[in-house]
Amino acid sequence: METITIKDIAKALGLSTSTVSRALRNSYEINPETKKLVMEYAERMNYRPNPIALSLRDSKSKSIGVIIPEIANHFFSQLINGIESIAYNLGYHVVIFQSHESYEREVANTNYLVSRKVDGLLISLSSLTTNLFHFQDLMERGLPIVFLDRVPNAIETHKVVVDNFAGSYEATEHLIKSGRKRIAHLTSPIYLSITTERLAGYKQALEDNGLPFDESYVKYCYHGGKVATENEAAVQEMLEMPEPPDAIFTASDRLTTGCMSVLQKKKIRIPEQIAIVGFTNISVAELLNPPLTAVVQPAMEMGQQAVELLIRLIEHPQKTDVFETRSLKTSLIIRESSVGKAEAL
Amino acid sequence: METITIKDIAKALGLSTSTVSRALRNSYEINPETKKLVMEYAERMNYRPNPIALSLRDSKSKSIGVIIPEIANHFFSQLINGIESIAYNLGYHVVIFQSHESYEREVANTNYLVSRKVDGLLISLSSLTTNLFHFQDLMERGLPIVFLDRVPNAIETHKVVVDNFAGSYEATEHLIKSGRKRIAHLTSPIYLSITTERLAGYKQALEDNGLPFDESYVKYCYHGGKVATENEAAVQEMLEMPEPPDAIFTASDRLTTGCMSVLQKKKIRIPEQIAIVGFTNISVAELLNPPLTAVVQPAMEMGQQAVELLIRLIEHPQKTDVFETRSLKTSLIIRESSVGKAEAL
Repeated sequence: METITIKDIAKALGLSTSTVSRALRNSYEINPETKKLVMEYAERMNYRPNPIALSLRDSKSKSIGVIIPEIANHFFSQLINGIESIAYNLGYHVVIFQSHESYEREVANTNYLVSRKVDGLLISLSSLTTNLFHFQDLMERGLPIVFLDRVPNAIETHKVVVDNFAGSYEATEHLIKSGRKRIAHLTSPIYLSITTERLAGYKQALEDNGLPFDESYVKYCYHGGKVATENEAAVQEMLEMPEPPDAIFTASDRLTTGCMSVLQKKKIRIPEQIAIVGFTNISVAELLNPPLTAVVQPAMEMGQQAVELLIRLIEHPQKTDVFETRSLKTSLIIRESSVGKAEAL
Repeated sequence: METITIKDIAKALGLSTSTVSRALRNSYEINPETKKLVMEYAERMNYRPNPIALSLRDSKSKSIGVIIPEIANHFFSQLINGIESIAYNLGYHVVIFQSHESYEREVANTNYLVSRKVDGLLISLSSLTTNLFHFQDLMERGLPIVFLDRVPNAIETHKVVVDNFAGSYEATEHLIKSGRKRIAHLTSPIYLSITTERLAGYKQALEDNGLPFDESYVKYCYHGGKVATENEAAVQEMLEMPEPPDAIFTASDRLTTGCMSVLQKKKIRIPEQIAIVGFTNISVAELLNPPLTAVVQPAMEMGQQAVELLIRLIEHPQKTDVFETRSLKTSLIIRESSVGKAEAL
C-alpha cells in the first residue's frame, strides 16, 4: 500500500520535515496556523504515522492487550465493554484475545501481544493455567499487567476482583433460609482464585447455619463449564447420589445454564425438586424457565476499574508504591429458580 | 524490557549472525543440526524476533483484524470462534475489535489495525455505517478484506453471508401455516444487507400465501436492538395498532430477546396471543419461557469460510480472478414460542 510520508507533506507545503513532524506531534514550538495547515493537509491526504518509526522513537503504542477465557460469555463481554468504555476515551486501543481456557493459547496470545508492543495487559486467567512464568517474566522486564476476576496469588500487581466469598455466602444462606438442606456446589477447577473463594463462602454459610459440609456435594469442572459433557456428567453424578441435593449453587454462566439444561432434559422440576442459584451475568436470566436467581457481578465496573489502574501504571510507573486489590460487591437477584412462583412475585 | 538479539545468540554459539538468522527462519541453506542448536538456544533464552526488524524485512505480520458490531452476542462470538479455529492452525493471530454499532468506532478500529500492519481484515458492518470510503480506500491500496454477514453491495471482494431470503421466507411461512394472519416484522436499519434480504423473504412468503403486505407491520430499530428503549418502543407501537399482530418475526438476537421481554412485562401470552420466531443463535433458546422457535445461522462455519477466503487472498494475491459470495443455509428450529406446547413436543 502506498502511504504519504512526512517528506511528501513538507514538500507539498514548502516546510521543513522537522516542522511538519513537530506540527503533527502538536508541539508547542510550532505556531497554531502552521499546525492547522499541516494537520488538515495530512488528514486530507490520509497520512498515517509510520508505526515502525513511532516504535523506534517512542515505545508507547497506545494500545492495551486483553486476554480472557472466552467472549461468548456475558460476564466477560461486559468486562470488555467496561474496559473499552474507559480506554477509548483516554485514547487507547483495546486488542482482545481469547485463551479458550487453554494455557498454551494464553501463552501464545501473550507472546504475540508483547511482540506487537502493547503498553500493558489485562488478564483473566484461563482455567487450565497453573504455571505463571509467562506473566512473571514480563512483569520483571517492566511490562504493566493488571489481573481481573481470575487472579494469581503468586504475582504482586493491581488486581480487581469481586467479593466472591460474600457473594457465595449470600447465595448459600438464601438457599438455606428457603428451606434447603442438601445444597450442592458445581464449580470450576480448584486452583482458580474464584473457585477457592466461592467454596469458602459456601462452606462458611453452611457452618454458620448448622449444616454439615460434605465434600461429595462439591463437583469441579476442569474446563469451567466449557465442555458440555463434563458439565452434564457432574450434574448426573449429583443426581445419582444416595441422597441427591435439593439445591445446586453453580459458580459460572455456563455451569448454570448447563445444569438447568440437564435438569430440564430429566424433567426435574425447578425449584420444587431442586432449587438453583447461579453466579451469572446472562442478559436473559429473567426470561428463562423458570427465571433464574442470580449472583450478578459488576462486570462493567470491574473492567473500568482494572483499565484505570493499568493506564495509571503505564503513564506514571514511578508513582506506584503499593499495589491494590480492589474487591467489588456482587448482588443477589432472587427469582423463581430458588423460591418458586409465589415467593418470587 | 531487555531482550536477547541474534547477535547475542551468534556470539554464544560461535556462529555468524547470518547463519543464526537463517536458522531461525528455518532456511534450507542451514543444516538440521545447526538449526536445532540455534532454535533450542533461542527458545531457552526466550528470544523474540524484533517486530520492527520483521516489519522492515517483510510486511507480513501474520495477523488478521476482525471488526464486528459487538461480542456480547452469540452469533458474533460463534463467528469469531470459527475464524479463530482456522486462523490459529494456519499460524495467524486474530485481533478482535468491536464497532459498538458506531461508524466512528469502525473507522477508528480500521485505522488502528492498518497502522499496526495486519495482513487482512474481516468485517461485519456496524448498523450505522453508510459511508464505505474507509474500506474502499484500503482495498484500492491493496489490503485484502473479506466481509461477512453484514456486507456492502458497493464493494467487490469475497463475501460470506447466510441465505437471509430463504431463512426469512421459511420462518414467515411457518407462522402462516401455524394459522397466523397478522405477522409483524421487527428488524434492523433498512440500509443493512441483512435487513433488505430478510424483508424480501418475509414479503415473498406473505405474497405466495395470499396475505397482504402492510408496511405498518414492519418496524426498524436503527441501533439493531442495542438500545433497549428503541426496541421496546417499536414493540409498543405494534401492540397499539388498531389490529395488533398475532405473530412477530424478529431479525436478530437482541431484537428477539428484547421483544420477549416486553411481551412478558405486559403479560402477553406467547404464543397464544402473539407467536414469536426470531433470527437468533443464543445458546439458551431452549431454556427460555417459552422455548424459542429460532432461525439459526451457521455462524461458526461462516467464520471458518470467511477466514479461509481471506488467507487465500493474503497468501496468493495473484490467484484471485473472480470474487465469490458464499451463501450458507439457515435452519429453522421449531419450539413452543410459535406453536405452543402440544405441537412442539
